[in-house]
Amino acid sequence: MDRRSFLRTSALGGTAAAASTLAAPAYAQGKRTLTMVQSWPRGFAVLDDAATFFQNAVGAMTDGQLTIDKKAPGELVGALEVFDAVSSGQADLYHSADYYFLGQHPGYAYFTAVPFGATGQELTNWYLHGGGHELHNELGEIFNLKSFLAGNSGSQSGGWFRKEMKSAEDFQGLKFRMPGLGGQVLGKLGASVQNIPGGELYQALSSGALDGLEWVGPYADERAGFQEVAKIYYTAGFHEPGSGLALGMNLDVYNDLSPAHQAVVSNACMATTHFNLSETLSNNGAALTRLQAQGVKTLQFTDDVWDAFGAASKEVMDANMDDELFAKIRGSFEESLASSSSWISKSDAFYVEQRNRVLGG
Amino acid sequence: MDRRSFLRTSALGGTAAAASTLAAPAYAQGKRTLTMVQSWPRGFAVLDDAATFFQNAVGAMTDGQLTIDKKAPGELVGALEVFDAVSSGQADLYHSADYYFLGQHPGYAYFTAVPFGATGQELTNWYLHGGGHELHNELGEIFNLKSFLAGNSGSQSGGWFRKEMKSAEDFQGLKFRMPGLGGQVLGKLGASVQNIPGGELYQALSSGALDGLEWVGPYADERAGFQEVAKIYYTAGFHEPGSGLALGMNLDVYNDLSPAHQAVVSNACMATTHFNLSETLSNNGAALTRLQAQGVKTLQFTDDVWDAFGAASKEVMDANMDDELFAKIRGSFEESLASSSSWISKSDAFYVEQRNRVLGG
Repeated sequence: MDRRSFLRTSALGGTAAAASTLAAPAYAQGKRTLTMVQSWPRGFAVLDDAATFFQNAVGAMTDGQLTIDKKAPGELVGALEVFDAVSSGQADLYHSADYYFLGQHPGYAYFTAVPFGATGQELTNWYLHGGGHELHNELGEIFNLKSFLAGNSGSQSGGWFRKEMKSAEDFQGLKFRMPGLGGQVLGKLGASVQNIPGGELYQALSSGALDGLEWVGPYADERAGFQEVAKIYYTAGFHEPGSGLALGMNLDVYNDLSPAHQAVVSNACMATTHFNLSETLSNNGAALTRLQAQGVKTLQFTDDVWDAFGAASKEVMDANMDDELFAKIRGSFEESLASSSSWISKSDAFYVEQRNRVLGG
Repeated sequence: MDRRSFLRTSALGGTAAAASTLAAPAYAQGKRTLTMVQSWPRGFAVLDDAATFFQNAVGAMTDGQLTIDKKAPGELVGALEVFDAVSSGQADLYHSADYYFLGQHPGYAYFTAVPFGATGQELTNWYLHGGGHELHNELGEIFNLKSFLAGNSGSQSGGWFRKEMKSAEDFQGLKFRMPGLGGQVLGKLGASVQNIPGGELYQALSSGALDGLEWVGPYADERAGFQEVAKIYYTAGFHEPGSGLALGMNLDVYNDLSPAHQAVVSNACMATTHFNLSETLSNNGAALTRLQAQGVKTLQFTDDVWDAFGAASKEVMDANMDDELFAKIRGSFEESLASSSSWISKSDAFYVEQRNRVLGG
């Protein structure tokens, strides 16, 4: 039995369970409340901001006819249990990052970010106009989910370290937090990689359980307080050049919504991504300045280290190619990215280079 | 009387007229149709696409309780008359590019694009998180408008020419179409600049009334057919690095909408921009390849020409600084842009440079 058939079969149990759980009347007196489990603690910059924006948009646009009851980690299920909870019908929808669910299917990597992959804008280009959303739903159907992107936390920083990373060898034995395929890449370089939910990271770094970590970018990282326990910060990273946040809704719940409420959910997701990526990109500059004022040293990895990231990334991506759906998603993603980036290099990127040269000179 | 007081006073007449025009009951049996005048012909790629996306989103999300009746140029008013039509209450809302209305106020330039200004993403950063939307509304109130951005056509190409532009002197006497402050910049270089609506451009270029023009980018330009009458195409331009499309609603009409419908309009505008910028960035690469196959030669302006654009742009921007609101908008915009771009250069841009180096090598 191939992986996909296996997954489809095992998900069927979940679907049946969901149907019975959700058999209760969906709209009571025209109103409906959906339970949303999320992977972020309340108040976490960028991530919880996106979930809250979505929640508020849905409530406001429907005049309270459709409302979202948000549950932070531990209030119903754990941070990384949200996918199974929604797939099985225990909750109605989740807000998370789909690369937390590589164990369910490796193709989910592409709906957050992959090493040497798309920037936030390039991801949107593929998702809305290059077949990405359709593939997200093809993956979601295996698990009885309707899938959306709802947020983007931007190009993720290289991360927090206690010492400078002068060569690829410095990753050997490093206890580092990085989820997704990026984590597998650092594993190839000899790091001891862990995926720990955001809400537990400060403690893990403080206690020495971790030598370093990457989270989001200056604005979110500052709020999490990592600058209090590590002082070396790499601003660019190879692993998540523009991380999409995902909203997965139980497919039975989605199908039971009115067409207008389905449209509200879809448009609210787009508005959320639009609002969220610009939030992080607007706030990171000032946050970085504040971090530097607290003694944080900002660096970039050297070309040699980037080359090592590149070689290990290729190995990791290729290792998943025996999965048919992974290969299909990768092919679609890379085709869109090549086309987008070829144009952007001739327009936006060329322009910014000239702007810097003309105004900076 | 300063310019702003003059404008406010003259707009008061419009407000009074609007109030009487719109005194008819707003919601008939719970439903309402708004008349939207737009500056683009039906079927114009990117531009009409944005207007149509907004129209469909509003109708779908409200289950037809709020619908948009779209009027192309000539169906109610001309392409560049939409602002006055909505300000006066003749129509309910417009979809256009606000830099067409520099005659009403020069500050409107910032809500489309200014020379050496923001990319599409940088514009959104300022608009949603740097005070831009509030300033758009401050400007709009002078004219009895509620203002939104609803679409972004991306970094505009340098344009179509019949000959190579080897130096800044080649612009001397050139009959060229470019709206906004960019057009004033080319005027400083000696060009004879005109603003002609999109629907009339093909004819003007074919007849020789124009020597050249800029419109949007490969995807929209190909649909307009300019490759049939000019063969030199500059891919990057100084004048519109990420052009916002504007939606202006008569303020009385907006205030009369239910809070839920106001939220629908606001979120639909954000979703429109999200969908629209990615549409153009996704399609430009393939469109450029097709244009090249039809014999179009693609070029970039030289550093010397960019330097001339830079010097003339500074003159044009500074010439408007005696207007208090223009100066306030410019200050807010430039502060946000400096912060955004400082971060992006350390993250997304540094990443893309490394990605190109590692994968290209």
